[in-house]
Amino acid sequence: MATTSLYTDLYELTMIQAAREAGVADRRCVFEVFTRSLPDGRRYGAFAGIGRILDALADFRFDETDLDFLRSTGQFTEDLLAYLEGYRFEGNIEAYAEGEVFFPNSPVVRIEGTFEQCVLLETLVLSILNHDSAIASVGSRMIQAAQGRPCIEMGSRRVHEHAAVAASRAAAIVGFSSTSNLEAGRIYDIPVVGTSAHAFTLLFDTEADAFRAQVHSLGAGTSLLVDTFDIREALDSAVEIAGPDLGAVRIDSGNLGQTAREVRAQLDALGATDTRITATSDLDEYRVFDLRDYPLDGYGIGTRLVTGGDHPAQGFVFKLVERENSSGTMEAVAKKSAQKATIAGSKRAYRVCDANGAARAELVLADDSGEQPSASLNARPLLTRLVENGEVLDSRSQWERIEKARRVHERALEELSLADLHIRTGQDGAVLLPVVHSLQELQELSH
Amino acid sequence: MATTSLYTDLYELTMIQAAREAGVADRRCVFEVFTRSLPDGRRYGAFAGIGRILDALADFRFDETDLDFLRSTGQFTEDLLAYLEGYRFEGNIEAYAEGEVFFPNSPVVRIEGTFEQCVLLETLVLSILNHDSAIASVGSRMIQAAQGRPCIEMGSRRVHEHAAVAASRAAAIVGFSSTSNLEAGRIYDIPVVGTSAHAFTLLFDTEADAFRAQVHSLGAGTSLLVDTFDIREALDSAVEIAGPDLGAVRIDSGNLGQTAREVRAQLDALGATDTRITATSDLDEYRVFDLRDYPLDGYGIGTRLVTGGDHPAQGFVFKLVERENSSGTMEAVAKKSAQKATIAGSKRAYRVCDANGAARAELVLADDSGEQPSASLNARPLLTRLVENGEVLDSRSQWERIEKARRVHERALEELSLADLHIRTGQDGAVLLPVVHSLQELQELSH
Repeated sequence: MATTSLYTDLYELTMIQAAREAGVADRRCVFEVFTRSLPDGRRYGAFAGIGRILDALADFRFDETDLDFLRSTGQFTEDLLAYLEGYRFEGNIEAYAEGEVFFPNSPVVRIEGTFEQCVLLETLVLSILNHDSAIASVGSRMIQAAQGRPCIEMGSRRVHEHAAVAASRAAAIVGFSSTSNLEAGRIYDIPVVGTSAHAFTLLFDTEADAFRAQVHSLGAGTSLLVDTFDIREALDSAVEIAGPDLGAVRIDSGNLGQTAREVRAQLDALGATDTRITATSDLDEYRVFDLRDYPLDGYGIGTRLVTGGDHPAQGFVFKLVERENSSGTMEAVAKKSAQKATIAGSKRAYRVCDANGAARAELVLADDSGEQPSASLNARPLLTRLVENGEVLDSRSQWERIEKARRVHERALEELSLADLHIRTGQDGAVLLPVVHSLQELQELSH
Repeated sequence: MATTSLYTDLYELTMIQAAREAGVADRRCVFEVFTRSLPDGRRYGAFAGIGRILDALADFRFDETDLDFLRSTGQFTEDLLAYLEGYRFEGNIEAYAEGEVFFPNSPVVRIEGTFEQCVLLETLVLSILNHDSAIASVGSRMIQAAQGRPCIEMGSRRVHEHAAVAASRAAAIVGFSSTSNLEAGRIYDIPVVGTSAHAFTLLFDTEADAFRAQVHSLGAGTSLLVDTFDIREALDSAVEIAGPDLGAVRIDSGNLGQTAREVRAQLDALGATDTRITATSDLDEYRVFDLRDYPLDGYGIGTRLVTGGDHPAQGFVFKLVERENSSGTMEAVAKKSAQKATIAGSKRAYRVCDANGAARAELVLADDSGEQPSASLNARPLLTRLVENGEVLDSRSQWERIEKARRVHERALEELSLADLHIRTGQDGAVLLPVVHSLQELQELSH
């Protein structure tokens, strides 16, 4: 099996090398992953990718090919290469549940272990979380905008071929019902669906020939693409060939809302009252929302989903917040760089809800504050231990993980009381939930 | 070795299945890849990814695992599965050279073969080209903006872990000098470099301890990160520890230009006149351009490069333009969908230059027009045969391909006379080169 260890920036290795030579590589450390801000217009983020990290961790070791390459660069000592050869992550990882929502400074992942054990994971952990959470975050908005109409992820052709598979997974977590991508079906058990392309229609001498061939092969329940030439003629022909039990038609061009009305009227007049209408063509959450009053039965969403909308990377960073000092005790640390200062010390996070179950705040308490939410406070801990001394504690199947994450996401959105969330809100940049760093701050909030 | 065949949308398979049952799956076809438009503000695109397609093609077959999965979905006939089991691409592929520039409707790839042979490649071909060319296109602008200062690709942590490797490759093609990504070094022989992170500094009891450890391990030629606490103190300490031969310092926060001036002055005063200054921190082509008059010696570019700037997908589509009809002759075809109509018929493309070697037009001639550029016209054919009857004609090493593509890109930019290209031009949406579809149109252009 291929290793995942070289999906890593070179400097992780040279830092370990220098730290080993200085005798500090085995200092115990706590690293946290968080984002400094949400992208403009977003009021919450949707956390995805931690399940993929657990898989990648199992293959995060350096095999002979990897070591031969590293040696060939001439940049590493034999001491470092020997360390890498024996490397297995032996620390602890806690994280927000996949599907959970997050806000600026939510400590979504906490990684504990020695410096050399932890820092080596930085690049891969960030790659996965920044990608998957970017897609989950915009995908969640699309699902909200669709107001219960099913959404299909069909963006594979717009992104890197492997990213496409991870994108299908992230989309499934926030509620997409299916994907066009076969590999996502194979690896993650996500339902795979499809219609046909214009090329299929053009392959035949006539559009009717193409419809006949598709219905013959896939049955009347199939979805026919009706906008290759003239939609009205195509619909007449489609219902004549498939009968009134035709499963669906797909519209991929023009004014989707107006066209859907005309298509619905014509289908109804032809007796195909149960035939569904699916729209595709550069949809995003805004267009989906704008289509809510038109007679559409589902959306196929591609480019804007799999590229994260306007925000293709989540902005997660991986920062050292606490480490052992020379006397062996743990010490909070933070950089002070202009506009990029970090909050020192490891933290615990809680979602605080009111008596009606509505979320009121994200409570983030420094471990060394000594504060804990009282039992009377409805405060759900957000960090769960997933890896202990290097052992992955999660043995669920891929699909079980996704199903669980879907439930987590649904619950988190319910708590956020999104009933009145207009998809266009948030343009002011205000996040949905305040993040507070002490019990007193929390109390002041309710006044 | 893993196959690449399931990085594919399901409908490619159901279309083949239906076409086989209808007896038209073996009709000869020509598919073309092109983009309908360039993203706002872009005046040319940079073509990248075709080298990766050649690699992916070798593994594009259906092994037992793939077939077992497909069978398990219950959506495919045994006839189709048997066809897939024996599938090897046996057609022809021509393409623009990697590194070449392209414009709207440039036919960058032409794929010939039977319908079932060609359509199966659609998803993978588009995934690779849309991703890699998006990055090459924005990367080329960054290199222009850097005006000869070296640029390092360091965006791995912002994108999917596999996409990161392809991003390094695309960046190298348009002139990035190195990458932070180890796997890109291993697979593509791209030079791998790195400095250190703030976590490294914070690991030590003092910043000076961290500098000492890094210089001890990596030599005075290393690059020290100087903005963890106070830059002035860090510089004093850095030069004291490494001596005036200190290789470089990296600034990752604050006002980069102004800070660079202060850092340069201080380094010079300390006698470290040859110590280079590298800037990182959310750079894009505009910021790089704005930094041109500040004393910086290189840029590390991450997020905005590897996510394609504001345009994470290139917008390439894969369209049937010609196919055999029922009488066995080839026939131009095109869909007429609103705003998405295609230009029928297979085409040849030429870059037409004037006597001074300056590009004047992209000449795209339909094969059935019978037109050919005369010998007196300085018209370079842009499509080269890369795959013939399924056999890949290109046996160069990965790095040879990249080096060739870099030369192609440099030449293409020279022809475009970018000397006066202000990086902010193109906001009007005008592409740099007119695309003409007949010799007469070309002639009218020069009047």
